[in-house]
Amino acid sequence: MTESTEGQARRLYFEDLEIGRRFQTGSVVVERDAIKRFAADFDPQPFHLDERAAEGTFFGGLVASGWHTAAITMRLLVTSGLPIAGGVIGAGGEMVWPKPVYPDDELTVGVEVVASKRSASRPDRGLVTVRSETRNQNGEIVQVMTARLVVPARDGAGAGTG
Amino acid sequence: MTESTEGQARRLYFEDLEIGRRFQTGSVVVERDAIKRFAADFDPQPFHLDERAAEGTFFGGLVASGWHTAAITMRLLVTSGLPIAGGVIGAGGEMVWPKPVYPDDELTVGVEVVASKRSASRPDRGLVTVRSETRNQNGEIVQVMTARLVVPARDGAGAGTG
Repeated sequence: MTESTEGQARRLYFEDLEIGRRFQTGSVVVERDAIKRFAADFDPQPFHLDERAAEGTFFGGLVASGWHTAAITMRLLVTSGLPIAGGVIGAGGEMVWPKPVYPDDELTVGVEVVASKRSASRPDRGLVTVRSETRNQNGEIVQVMTARLVVPARDGAGAGTG
Repeated sequence: MTESTEGQARRLYFEDLEIGRRFQTGSVVVERDAIKRFAADFDPQPFHLDERAAEGTFFGGLVASGWHTAAITMRLLVTSGLPIAGGVIGAGGEMVWPKPVYPDDELTVGVEVVASKRSASRPDRGLVTVRSETRNQNGEIVQVMTARLVVPARDGAGAGTG
């Protein structure tokens, strides 16, 4: 996996994540060997492990595990997309994989804040819902994920921090 | 990661996955080094990478990435839980992580079929929804996932196969 950009921007707090705000990550090329390594560890099925074995399957060829796509999406968000103070901490979410990821696909992620709610019991933090679209080099969507993130509030973080 | 059971049961088709049917996987111990390796590759944040750095964070100590928990859950389903003909092929799903996974936690997954629908356009397959609960050695739920799987039908698979 190689990353074309890996920015380190200003850290963001709950107050910064207004609904409609968008972010764009760098990109990652998903190498053939990385697909097989991930599969060997976590999703050892023929269509993720071996080109020849994959031919007779649902996919008709080698494709990345959807969990690999999800993990790469997370890497892009953490390293170049969502510089959230306190980190990118997910409470859960939902996802679809409309198309497979093939060897040497180059993935990038666009994110949009779609909901935001300060915690009533813990006003020093909020729950921010983001919708991410992971696309390949042809602009085709390979994963859509809606995730709920726990985000610290600036006004709860103490003056001078962040 | 070590697995205590890794069964190779009879392959299951759409017709076998009646609503309410349950499966139980083997178990996996999530080793400290595996947590850090996964994080270095896919979720490089202090609370997944380093004990000392994790102390001052939301989690207060080293925990596994939620995506690592999801990937381990997939491994357990593929290798010992859901012997589906054609493989475990997810179209999408949703998940929550109610509790973190800590170093040396031992995880196991229980799965239940919660919905089932034969494809109208492709009657040789169906969409089966399963709900999986990933639990640690204390019986605490660390992940709940509801996933939609594409499953081949026996009567569309040709006589004598499977």
